[in-house]
Formats: sequence, C-alpha cells, structure tokens
Amino acid sequence: MTIKTMEELFLHGLEDVYFAEKQIVKALPKMAKAVKSKELKQAMETHLEETKEQVKRLDKVFNLLGEKAQGTECPAIEGLIEEGEELMKETKDKDVVSAGLLAGAQAVEHYEIARYGTLVAWAQLLGHQEISELLEETLSEEKNADRILNEIALREVNERAGKAA
Amino acid sequence: MTIKTMEELFLHGLEDVYFAEKQIVKALPKMAKAVKSKELKQAMETHLEETKEQVKRLDKVFNLLGEKAQGTECPAIEGLIEEGEELMKETKDKDVVSAGLLAGAQAVEHYEIARYGTLVAWAQLLGHQEISELLEETLSEEKNADRILNEIALREVNERAGKAA
Repeated sequence: MTIKTMEELFLHGLEDVYFAEKQIVKALPKMAKAVKSKELKQAMETHLEETKEQVKRLDKVFNLLGEKAQGTECPAIEGLIEEGEELMKETKDKDVVSAGLLAGAQAVEHYEIARYGTLVAWAQLLGHQEISELLEETLSEEKNADRILNEIALREVNERAGKAA
Repeated sequence: MTIKTMEELFLHGLEDVYFAEKQIVKALPKMAKAVKSKELKQAMETHLEETKEQVKRLDKVFNLLGEKAQGTECPAIEGLIEEGEELMKETKDKDVVSAGLLAGAQAVEHYEIARYGTLVAWAQLLGHQEISELLEETLSEEKNADRILNEIALREVNERAGKAA
C-alpha cells in the first residue's frame, strides 16, 4: 500500500482501528474469564458490547466514505494483546492476574484514545463532519472505559492483589 | 518468568517500560529525520533528551529496589514502532509522513501514560514512596509531550498535510 494524501492516511488509520477493534472483541472474553474481581469482569463484559457497537460505527464510517470496511494489520494492538496473554501464562495468583490484566486493558484504551483522537482531528481537517461526530462518540466511550477501569483498580483490584503472598 | 506477587508484577512492569524507553531512544532520531516540520523535528529531539533522562530515572528506581536494571521484551512498543517504520516506507509525501509520525508518537506517549499511571499506583500500594515520586515525574513529562504534539498537529502539521495532492 502506498499512501500519498491525507485522505489515504485517514483511510489507513480507520483500517488500523477496525482491525484493532476486531482483535479486542476476540480478546476481551478471554480476559474477562481470567480475572477474579466480579466488578472488573462485569466492566470487561460491558466494554465488549460497547466494542461491538464501535465496529458497527466504523462500518458506517467506511460506508459514508464509499469505501469497503476492512482492517489492516495493526502490530501495536497485537503486541498489547500478546502482553496480556503472556501475563495470563506467567502469573500464578488470580488477584495478581486481575491487576495485570486491568493495567493491560488500560493500555489498550489509551492506544484507542490516541488513535481516535487523531482520527477525529483528521476527519475535521478533511471536512467529514458526520464521520468526525461518529468517531468522537467512540473516543468518549474509550475515555470513559479507561476512567471506569481506573476506579476499579484504585477501589478494589490493586489492594486485593497487594495481599497476594 | 513466573509472577506470583504484586512486587514481582511491579518489577515486571518496570522492566517493560525500561525496554520501551530504550527502543524509543533508538526510534526517535529516525522519526525526527523523516519529518518535514521543523517544529515537530525540534519537539522530537527535545523528547529524545527527556527520554534519556527517563532511562536514568529508571536506573535509579531499580537501584532503590535493589534489583538489576534490565528490560523485558515489550511487544506493544515494538508494534508501535513497527507501525511508524511501515508508515515511513509506505508514504510518499513528506508532509503526510509528518502527520502520520506525529500521530504515531502520540500513540507511544499514550502507551507510556497508561503504563506509568499504573506503575505510580502500584508503587504507592507497595509503599515505595520515593519510587512513586520518580515515576510520577516521568508520567507528567509524557503527558506534557503528548500535549505539545497535539498543539503542533492542530497548529501546523495536519493542515500542511491536508494540502498534499
């Protein structure tokens, strides 16, 4: 693929997050299964449903652009998910796994916050008003998911994990 | 490596960011060379110096813990850097490269914001007050670097790239 214009870079960015969201849809159920905290499990399950809607929102974005909805390999999200999988393998205590996976989920959220933040700015630059609003909606969901994870970490998960001997 | 306690998970997290910072020290000069905007180039060079200090700060953290300063492979940062390298290869217009690499640098900053945010919380949980303050210092530098990049994107880089035909 050769990128020449901002319009093409924007499309490439959309394909990157499309791939990322689909990987997250696959990874979240495994993560939710591995964590001990009920509240964290619930937050991951809720975010899974939200992520499925974000994929549909991206389908709509591709449609508005008259482009085929497709992903392009995103090594960053693959690396983030791989870190979570390694952690599940390497960590023996389930409370410690919860703390590690919660942190991993926050890293994923931050990846998406960075990417959607950029895509919103690019959509506005390119005059795609409706698309910019759709992406903005997802951006605020990702920020909210990060906030919820942070609250669960500070309220419950970290302290329990701190007690693991 | 088998992780059993939060203390071990914390050490693993420090090794992850240590590896990441060293990869960033290697990647930033290449990125600074590839971008056209002087302001962005300058921001990347300044952040390179800051990153070298962050590595030294981590050396100090390992020392305070009585542990050897060493990195552990971090697939997430490798993926993030790989995305930037692919972009440099695939993109023909230098203004468009600038916009793409700026976005990639923001994704790297967000990875670090997530990781250092977690490490600060874990350091506090484990009673490592001095370490928590050192990590907090890096965390605020990363947030500041992201803010600066955002300003440069909105003020200059995106608009120029939007004009690429």
